[in-house]
Amino acid sequence: MASLITLTSDFGTRDGFVAQMKGVILGINSEVKLVDVAHDIEPFSILEGALVVKGLATYYPPGSIHVAVVDPGVGGQRRAIAIEADGQYFVGPDNGIFSLVLGHLGNWKIREVKSSEYTLPDPHPTFHGRDIFAPCAACLSIGKSFDSVGPVVTDPVVLPIPNATGAEDGIIGEVMHVDRYGSLMSNIEARMLVHPVKSVFAGKAEIDGVKFFFGEVEQGMPLALVNSFGYLEIAVNRGNASETLGMGKGDRIEVRWAWKE
Amino acid sequence: MASLITLTSDFGTRDGFVAQMKGVILGINSEVKLVDVAHDIEPFSILEGALVVKGLATYYPPGSIHVAVVDPGVGGQRRAIAIEADGQYFVGPDNGIFSLVLGHLGNWKIREVKSSEYTLPDPHPTFHGRDIFAPCAACLSIGKSFDSVGPVVTDPVVLPIPNATGAEDGIIGEVMHVDRYGSLMSNIEARMLVHPVKSVFAGKAEIDGVKFFFGEVEQGMPLALVNSFGYLEIAVNRGNASETLGMGKGDRIEVRWAWKE
Amino acid sequence: MASLITLTSDFGTRDGFVAQMKGVILGINSEVKLVDVAHDIEPFSILEGALVVKGLATYYPPGSIHVAVVDPGVGGQRRAIAIEADGQYFVGPDNGIFSLVLGHLGNWKIREVKSSEYTLPDPHPTFHGRDIFAPCAACLSIGKSFDSVGPVVTDPVVLPIPNATGAEDGIIGEVMHVDRYGSLMSNIEARMLVHPVKSVFAGKAEIDGVKFFFGEVEQGMPLALVNSFGYLEIAVNRGNASETLGMGKGDRIEVRWAWKE
Repeated sequence: MASLITLTSDFGTRDGFVAQMKGVILGINSEVKLVDVAHDIEPFSILEGALVVKGLATYYPPGSIHVAVVDPGVGGQRRAIAIEADGQYFVGPDNGIFSLVLGHLGNWKIREVKSSEYTLPDPHPTFHGRDIFAPCAACLSIGKSFDSVGPVVTDPVVLPIPNATGAEDGIIGEVMHVDRYGSLMSNIEARMLVHPVKSVFAGKAEIDGVKFFFGEVEQGMPLALVNSFGYLEIAVNRGNASETLGMGKGDRIEVRWAWKE
Repeated sequence: MASLITLTSDFGTRDGFVAQMKGVILGINSEVKLVDVAHDIEPFSILEGALVVKGLATYYPPGSIHVAVVDPGVGGQRRAIAIEADGQYFVGPDNGIFSLVLGHLGNWKIREVKSSEYTLPDPHPTFHGRDIFAPCAACLSIGKSFDSVGPVVTDPVVLPIPNATGAEDGIIGEVMHVDRYGSLMSNIEARMLVHPVKSVFAGKAEIDGVKFFFGEVEQGMPLALVNSFGYLEIAVNRGNASETLGMGKGDRIEVRWAWKE
Repeated sequence: MASLITLTSDFGTRDGFVAQMKGVILGINSEVKLVDVAHDIEPFSILEGALVVKGLATYYPPGSIHVAVVDPGVGGQRRAIAIEADGQYFVGPDNGIFSLVLGHLGNWKIREVKSSEYTLPDPHPTFHGRDIFAPCAACLSIGKSFDSVGPVVTDPVVLPIPNATGAEDGIIGEVMHVDRYGSLMSNIEARMLVHPVKSVFAGKAEIDGVKFFFGEVEQGMPLALVNSFGYLEIAVNRGNASETLGMGKGDRIEVRWAWKE
């Protein structure tokens, strides 16, 4: 029986939203292990939530249940969904927040959360996190059937992610996410790189090659590396690349292969 | 035996205050389930803490113990108290942080935390969270008697909350709290509203009626709704009402009934 | 068998780094109790991490395992270490983050984390938190031998901490840390003070004596006290000393004894 529930949201903690979700879960399953992932996802940023959720699947044990709520469309037409994929579960809004992890996992089944046996009565129209997703996850954690959650969903919403595009002598992408350190995570995946890389252009900087770790360049200098999520990233050793290079989400990152000279 | 302790504070996490409290609790009850509610309550804002604590009581299972510490008067004359109410427990300073939840619950008993069997020896004068409240909660969680905590308290401090006041054709209140999204939570409770509502005036905006969820208005437009805490709230669909309307705590919110025209 | 792991880092939570560490730990020990200490340590501030970690040792029960990761040198020459001291364990980079707690504890043994039985295969060069420290801590928590972690370390890196220096009629120190409330924590320890203290000079302020708690001075006024970590601190009653006095890390704090007049 699954008994581990992780929580990801843009709720912050200061208003008590997340704490209420935890109370609902613990009221249904007092033995569950609750794990805070992040509650400081940028408000309404489904992409940021999707990136974090994608990172969970690889590292959590089978049977884990991941609740993720970045949900600007709450109360409207968007569906609530539960997903079973490779032995893990995901519960949240059907707005694309799970589309990156779905692309990553196999053998998934999706159900719309419809059965009133998996939710609180009279869900508040602006807080499905507490009244629908939390109790649904808790019900799954005590062994209630996944298949009874509600009708099958075959067309989950897919988040539009900007694709990196091949150029004659390299690849052109953009900044997809700026992390806690100000490092610039691009949409260029490790497998898209043709080594050796000659240069990475980020803003006004031309960066030599791809390094492995920060200390390979002087303190305060920019570098490119493949980060722990598997994406090309621009960082500054002991500094903040976003500030140093004046770059943010959507800005262009260009990679040029060495062998194309 | 109660074995769930929640923690609410304005301590932040970065200085390790909360972690020390957790260590003290785990040293007394290694089996307890610890739940972080919020540690980013605005420094010294007892009202903000009180709102969060009020939101807990409805959603936590019986026997839960809630520690709440927003405590600018620590070390001085203010009492430390423990409360038993409707099967839940609350431990913290007697400065009004529990007055909203007390108004909400019935059958409460309050004791001053005085017995040295429920605290660490020689409490530090600026950190009762660690040396008094945490061990007291932990002692309750292992089944030590509530009645032995200390003498009965009959006059807990009540937080002065601004009341909404009735007008001829509506009600006038104010912003009590600005949440994570910049939404403006007023002191007007759902039960005070006479439907249909014609308009809600917030700053320079005149907002039509009361909606149920954010997506009922265009992106970037303000709306009024009854939030998940049961209060009238001004929000902006996928935006920040506080920034859009230039409003904050204490600013006036006025509601006008439709039937008074 | 130890089964409590605390986590301290400068990772923030928003990027999912910490959540991945938790997943790795729970995959090895599904029964472990995970405790978040702080993830908002100032990026790259080893000293801030060291102060928080020092505060843990006193308050956690024997057998606790503390993972601490502020690690700008990740991937380079710095060693990964595990420490056993006074019945508690510490795992993280050998960059000084444990040097304050080591000075505080006795009977310590240190090992370099080298055995591949205590880490994930192919650790990513920028994320030893997930691939080395987390699994090492989890392995210790299930009772794997401390001595098999790797070779003995006898020369752990010691963080250079500015020392307070004695003057003719007092002591001169500096601000070592600014806490959540803006209070200024100095490097002057309680044991260095000769009472009665006449004045404490902080920026342009001359503060009378050493108080016990904030409410001993008027709201908005500065005071000096020995804080709950045992260091002399400058605070403002219900205010922010850093803002009020315009002071921050490294600024001078001077104490003058009364008996030297």
